[in-house]
Amino acid sequence: MSAIKFYQHPGRFRMRRGAITAPTFAYETWGELDGRASNAVLIFTGLSPSAHVASCIEDPASGWWEDMVGPDKPIDTNRYFVVCVNSLGSCFGSTGPASINPETGNHYRLDFPVLCLEDVAAGGALVLDHLGIEKLHTVVGASMGGMTALAFCLLFPGRSRALIAISSAARSLPFSIAIRSLQREMIRTDPEWRNGAYDFDKGPINGMRLARKLGMISYRSAEEWTERFGRERTSDDHEGPFGIDFEVESYLEAHASKFIGTFDPNCYLYLSRAMDLFDATDHGGSLRQGLSRVALERAMVIGVETDFLFPVEQQEELAIGLKEYVPEVAFRRMDSRQGHDAFLVDMDRFRPAIASQF
Amino acid sequence: MSAIKFYQHPGRFRMRRGAITAPTFAYETWGELDGRASNAVLIFTGLSPSAHVASCIEDPASGWWEDMVGPDKPIDTNRYFVVCVNSLGSCFGSTGPASINPETGNHYRLDFPVLCLEDVAAGGALVLDHLGIEKLHTVVGASMGGMTALAFCLLFPGRSRALIAISSAARSLPFSIAIRSLQREMIRTDPEWRNGAYDFDKGPINGMRLARKLGMISYRSAEEWTERFGRERTSDDHEGPFGIDFEVESYLEAHASKFIGTFDPNCYLYLSRAMDLFDATDHGGSLRQGLSRVALERAMVIGVETDFLFPVEQQEELAIGLKEYVPEVAFRRMDSRQGHDAFLVDMDRFRPAIASQF
Repeated sequence: MSAIKFYQHPGRFRMRRGAITAPTFAYETWGELDGRASNAVLIFTGLSPSAHVASCIEDPASGWWEDMVGPDKPIDTNRYFVVCVNSLGSCFGSTGPASINPETGNHYRLDFPVLCLEDVAAGGALVLDHLGIEKLHTVVGASMGGMTALAFCLLFPGRSRALIAISSAARSLPFSIAIRSLQREMIRTDPEWRNGAYDFDKGPINGMRLARKLGMISYRSAEEWTERFGRERTSDDHEGPFGIDFEVESYLEAHASKFIGTFDPNCYLYLSRAMDLFDATDHGGSLRQGLSRVALERAMVIGVETDFLFPVEQQEELAIGLKEYVPEVAFRRMDSRQGHDAFLVDMDRFRPAIASQF
Repeated sequence: MSAIKFYQHPGRFRMRRGAITAPTFAYETWGELDGRASNAVLIFTGLSPSAHVASCIEDPASGWWEDMVGPDKPIDTNRYFVVCVNSLGSCFGSTGPASINPETGNHYRLDFPVLCLEDVAAGGALVLDHLGIEKLHTVVGASMGGMTALAFCLLFPGRSRALIAISSAARSLPFSIAIRSLQREMIRTDPEWRNGAYDFDKGPINGMRLARKLGMISYRSAEEWTERFGRERTSDDHEGPFGIDFEVESYLEAHASKFIGTFDPNCYLYLSRAMDLFDATDHGGSLRQGLSRVALERAMVIGVETDFLFPVEQQEELAIGLKEYVPEVAFRRMDSRQGHDAFLVDMDRFRPAIASQF
């Protein structure tokens, strides 16, 4: 069973660098909207998750933020109406490069317009329109989702009273661009990518495996891995001198194997590139000019000391920038070992921080 | 012209995990050995350089450590006899997987025994024997070369009076193993690798390109790139939505293009794996037991704060370990922006540090 709902936008949807016809937005909701429609919380996701943030009666499978969203949880669905939208450009129900272009009857593939996080944010706003929500209690996101939540505030000033941005960025810097650029090159240079025209049953499996492994390397921290794996060896027979030998190699292999086949490679390329392109300074000429528009009442920015993909200094910069224009800004520097992924893992630190905003 | 010299070892050369017949060791020398053969300095290299550390009359091309070695330079060739050996397993004159196996008449390729840095160190010792050098003034190395220099001290206690280990490690930890494992997988999964039996004129060019780019990402630092590239765009026409667009992408492409074709892919695999396998605790059961053997008079350990491949904490651990058994140990924590590669770039900090030991 699935709890997924769909909103199809009638007519053209203008993107920053193109337009598409009648896109679908997949979303899930938890809890009930109150009479004044004042208790809505919108969650934007990272690059790879679906809209299934948490389990529910219709879909009891654990969600990607199961510990954070639900009855009596930090984002308490007894009190709040929570909406999560599958990103435009993704492949879990929303329109993206793996969808059929209604104008041609063919899959978009590389005919999909260049995607920006502003387009993903605008998709979220359309779902809110559809649900009759004029103003959010809070918009929340981590990683790409945090950038998208910020884009939402830049595009729709005053549409949310509060923002929570976790391990994200006001603009992508060259180190993270380099990592993502290399991940895309791994996929694009897999001969099975076929310039985007791969067979959906096969595709660039090896490129996706390599890209996911680099992702995992950039999502965690050296400190965590030293504690967790050290120089432990696998007990398996080794496949020649260059096969899997150390535990850390086996861990990467297991994560990559779970990922391939579940995520469409072209969607991955588009969303990855959208992160590179994001720059809040596009909204007014400077970060300051951009942030002056947000019209928020409150914001919380969270960074993790061991995150080297979206370093804590970037979070601090965002928090300081917001402080000029937002009455109440909290900045939390988390001492987690789990790097960029800490918001998914280090729940003892993240639960109380998020709960403090609800 | 070339200044390269060759020593061919007669008969079998026992490696830690196998043996080869009559290997050749390529090396270069600068300066003159004094009458008591007491002024010799041995330099081990990182993964990719040749033995050409510095220019000389026979080969005026700049060497990879040109600013450090030469007349009146920190390692002053007016006073010291400097030897640099191309690592066993490499492809710049010393025997490695790209060499002909004299027993079969075919290239070794994957028939080359599993390589350990102890084997590379033992090759250096054979060259010293050949040159009539019983005891070194100093053995020096950075990165893989620092690990090899330490291996040399563990295998041949007392054979060097001093050690300089820069941005290296007493043992490889899982983060750097993960990076190198992924680089090897990029090469091995390039269809042109052909299980090591590639045509030497072609080979896994794409895998090498990807591996080199990941290398460059891990050799520098996010801080340096933010200052240097920011979000600058290239002025070139962009090759579609996923081509080279940001300056940092162009920088990686230029470095990778210089590398491919110059380094043999199988040699890269062997040397990369040798770094993973290195663990000083193999020499006695613990790091302490291992280091108790070195019989050094002096040691200098240098780490760089922005190095996330061989983090400064690992250098500090090595320095602390050495202090128990070595009368004079200096530890330098460098505030360089250039990450792991700082020893090649930040000469203003590295020149005086190295000079202090000569």
